[in-house]
Amino acid sequence: MRRIQVIGIGAGDPEQLTLQAVRALRGADVFFVLDKGEIKADLTGLRRDLLDTHVPDRTYRIVEASDPERDRTAVGAAYAPAVGDWRSARAGIYERLIGEELGEDETGAFLVWGDPSLYDSTLGILEEVLERGSVAFEYDVVPGVSSVSALAARHRTALNRVARPVQITTGRRLAEGFPEGVDDVVVMLDAHQAFRRYAHEDIDIYWGAYVGTPDEILVSGPIAEAAPRIERLRAEARERKGWIMDTYLLRRRSRD
Amino acid sequence: MRRIQVIGIGAGDPEQLTLQAVRALRGADVFFVLDKGEIKADLTGLRRDLLDTHVPDRTYRIVEASDPERDRTAVGAAYAPAVGDWRSARAGIYERLIGEELGEDETGAFLVWGDPSLYDSTLGILEEVLERGSVAFEYDVVPGVSSVSALAARHRTALNRVARPVQITTGRRLAEGFPEGVDDVVVMLDAHQAFRRYAHEDIDIYWGAYVGTPDEILVSGPIAEAAPRIERLRAEARERKGWIMDTYLLRRRSRD
Ligand SMILES: C[S@@+](CC[C@H](N)C(=O)[O-])C[C@H]1O[C@@H](n2cnc3c(N)ncnc32)[C@H](O)[C@@H]1O
Ligand SMILES: C[S@@+](CC[C@H](N)C(=O)[O-])C[C@H]1O[C@@H](n2cnc3c(N)ncnc32)[C@H](O)[C@@H]1O
Repeated sequence: MRRIQVIGIGAGDPEQLTLQAVRALRGADVFFVLDKGEIKADLTGLRRDLLDTHVPDRTYRIVEASDPERDRTAVGAAYAPAVGDWRSARAGIYERLIGEELGEDETGAFLVWGDPSLYDSTLGILEEVLERGSVAFEYDVVPGVSSVSALAARHRTALNRVARPVQITTGRRLAEGFPEGVDDVVVMLDAHQAFRRYAHEDIDIYWGAYVGTPDEILVSGPIAEAAPRIERLRAEARERKGWIMDTYLLRRRSRD
Repeated sequence: MRRIQVIGIGAGDPEQLTLQAVRALRGADVFFVLDKGEIKADLTGLRRDLLDTHVPDRTYRIVEASDPERDRTAVGAAYAPAVGDWRSARAGIYERLIGEELGEDETGAFLVWGDPSLYDSTLGILEEVLERGSVAFEYDVVPGVSSVSALAARHRTALNRVARPVQITTGRRLAEGFPEGVDDVVVMLDAHQAFRRYAHEDIDIYWGAYVGTPDEILVSGPIAEAAPRIERLRAEARERKGWIMDTYLLRRRSRD
């Protein structure tokens, strides 16, 4: 039976790989890499460095494919369907890769940024491939340190306050309004700095870009003061590197 | 300057330690261990096994202290203040440990279950010790794989659905009502199986106890069917081991 491992590799710091992930890297025959275009070349580079470090005898093959184009213009109610179409296109690619490039008793691996359970499509796509029924395989997931945990660690803060909840959401959602029933909100996938909308509120922000990498930038403080600084640093970094990955925690100050 | 490392050690699987955590274990002169009473002896055992495995030459000291008693009868609005009192009592103990047991140029370590950013008091207590001003130290946080990531990995599911949020909350909160604005909810610290209240709703549950350990138990499925099974398995396991640690994801099925 073909076997697939979905391996969380941490969100930027190669030392944030787990021992279980190292073992999984060493056990894989084939790594499937989907090229995400030029901007993400740095990330692909980090994946290759991990392999060079942990599997120095190169006992593996790398199989590359191009990512299908995604409709990035879809907004609001059209967003999830657009992601759905893209996911199906990806499932077709994965199906072909697994069927053609992985031997019957081999182990294939997908390296997933951060933790596979947060805003990553790999698990959903593999389920879709299995449902199509043309290739069979077993699969396992190796959890990783998420960018959320990495961000909190660098700011030396917990995500939740005592006995209180925390919500993890997207920039798109935050742009629609502050989530109900929570005062601690982690925001990912925010291309438009949705936090600016809350700059006049009694909120602290803990922001980080490229967390865990040599380019890491951290800013924290009352949002009114921090927001303009973040805007400036973010624009500069994005200009310099050509891409940015940032996450933040918004913490509404207690009213008492 | 004294240095403290707060090290996330994963939530049960010793292989889910990161390379950064291993390095931090090896660099510590003193490990501070707060005895949480008999029930948690297994957990203390796991911590010792980690040290035996990763620092075999025993270049460290272990300093133990008793945890202050916590008022576990406090409910509702009294809960957070009770935790606050306990936290201050703990800060007194940490202050003494750091001041008396850690040399001026030594590194001390606290091993934190899972990831230090989720429902753990260590960071808040260290901040309180610093505020008191009687001992000075620098401190860093090493993020870990949380029990939430470990649970999701074992169930091979993402926490969020495409473009949607996920909330992490406590059993106490869930007992008060299903969180607003989210259909994916992770519940921790639930001593009373608050999920039972939702057993008649259109919800799937992904439950796990002792995740990542040899005692791991996993149950998933429509909550109406899974809830009675979880109740039974949970009661049996709790009886057998004397304590239980469980977490679950509730996923409300889409109305479309
Ligand atoms: C597609 S999601 C993948 C998340 C990933 N599975 C995880 O566990 O971190 C990408 C988002 O993760 C966040 N992110 C990932 N790595 C990051 C890093 N090193 N620094 C800051 N944010 C990061 C950003 O919000 C980015 O938009
Ligand atoms: C005080 S909190 C600490 C959480 C920890 N910092 C983390 O990141 O997982 C303890 C709660 O974590 C969850 N938990 C921790 N380890 C677990 C495990 N191995 N399996 C299931 N739940 C676990 C349970 O909900 C438990 O009540």
